[in-house]
Amino acid sequence: MNLLESQIKSLEQRYRATLINSLAGVRPAVLVGTRSLSGRSNLAVFNSLIHIGADPALWGLLFRPATVRRDTLSNLVETGVYTINFMPSSLHRSVHQTSAKFPEEVSEFQACGFEEEYVSDHAAPFVKEAIVKVAMRFVSQQELNVNGTILVIGALHQIMVDDESINSEGFFNPEKADVLTCAGLDAYTRVVMTGRWSYARPDQPVKPLEH
Amino acid sequence: MNLLESQIKSLEQRYRATLINSLAGVRPAVLVGTRSLSGRSNLAVFNSLIHIGADPALWGLLFRPATVRRDTLSNLVETGVYTINFMPSSLHRSVHQTSAKFPEEVSEFQACGFEEEYVSDHAAPFVKEAIVKVAMRFVSQQELNVNGTILVIGALHQIMVDDESINSEGFFNPEKADVLTCAGLDAYTRVVMTGRWSYARPDQPVKPLEH
Repeated sequence: MNLLESQIKSLEQRYRATLINSLAGVRPAVLVGTRSLSGRSNLAVFNSLIHIGADPALWGLLFRPATVRRDTLSNLVETGVYTINFMPSSLHRSVHQTSAKFPEEVSEFQACGFEEEYVSDHAAPFVKEAIVKVAMRFVSQQELNVNGTILVIGALHQIMVDDESINSEGFFNPEKADVLTCAGLDAYTRVVMTGRWSYARPDQPVKPLEH
Repeated sequence: MNLLESQIKSLEQRYRATLINSLAGVRPAVLVGTRSLSGRSNLAVFNSLIHIGADPALWGLLFRPATVRRDTLSNLVETGVYTINFMPSSLHRSVHQTSAKFPEEVSEFQACGFEEEYVSDHAAPFVKEAIVKVAMRFVSQQELNVNGTILVIGALHQIMVDDESINSEGFFNPEKADVLTCAGLDAYTRVVMTGRWSYARPDQPVKPLEH
């Protein structure tokens, strides 16, 4: 396949969406939990988690204009909190089911077979089945001029994860944790480690690190 | 591990960077090729490729403030073009070596054992060994207020990829292509497909799709 910009533009719409999304590569498939001001819980799968910075610890999420995920966006802006839940790879089918446009009064937790969990005074629900549970505090939203996509940035307010997946240097091993990842809009994947390498310097070859 | 925001803040710096980056999950490790106005080629690994939209087809890259990758940023802004190269998973060691701070006059292509390739009149170099080669056209840059990170957005100007990795619906299979992915700053991974599912609807279970 060798496509120029004008040819990409004239692809059939669904084919183009599948192609450009899946070419962009594998990334985490996370469940984002929120609660409306009226107390309704909401759960949605996102493949747009972005590492923004480690100090302060900040992650981003992209919201495309006019999608079902606007429930998540309005909830997290109104309440100031949300959760990011990394799931076991075996649950890919149920995770994908959360992307359906359920009526507003239906909780995706119940509809898709996940259990709500509340921790301390964090108002947003976690997913009990998750491997990594992160309480997020909403920090800012910024519209991208190019296409109206909204970048939401949040601070990591609390991290809960099994010690066994994290080594002495703070490295979270995605194969050991068997965390769910995805490719594009509808395909799910798991991870196999191939190697971890020392800090690279021009004058010496990198060395293998423990993982 | 159960860490609160204040505890995350007081972690040792390198431990925190490893933890927050690796928890954020697996993503593509791509090589970005550029050429300076004076004709010097540059190659750097990025783990921050972001899908921004399919129509128009736009991808983003994050540039942290004050890193070695500023060569890439200034080159792509000045020349208006760059390349994004997805690599075979077996080449993780050489890919990681490109993250070293080589002197400005050294080309990472030669230093790390990759071959430059030029296609049509695109001024930026591709990596000959890549599985997927995308010519990018610089569109915009936007600073994120929270920490000075720069989001660069570009249009997909040309896509070159082997037909065998793409099915009739436009789905690029990352396991079949054996594409390199990474976890955090120094760990490399490959992908195993677990399933692909039909468009989810509230009133019916999702069905498996070809992948």
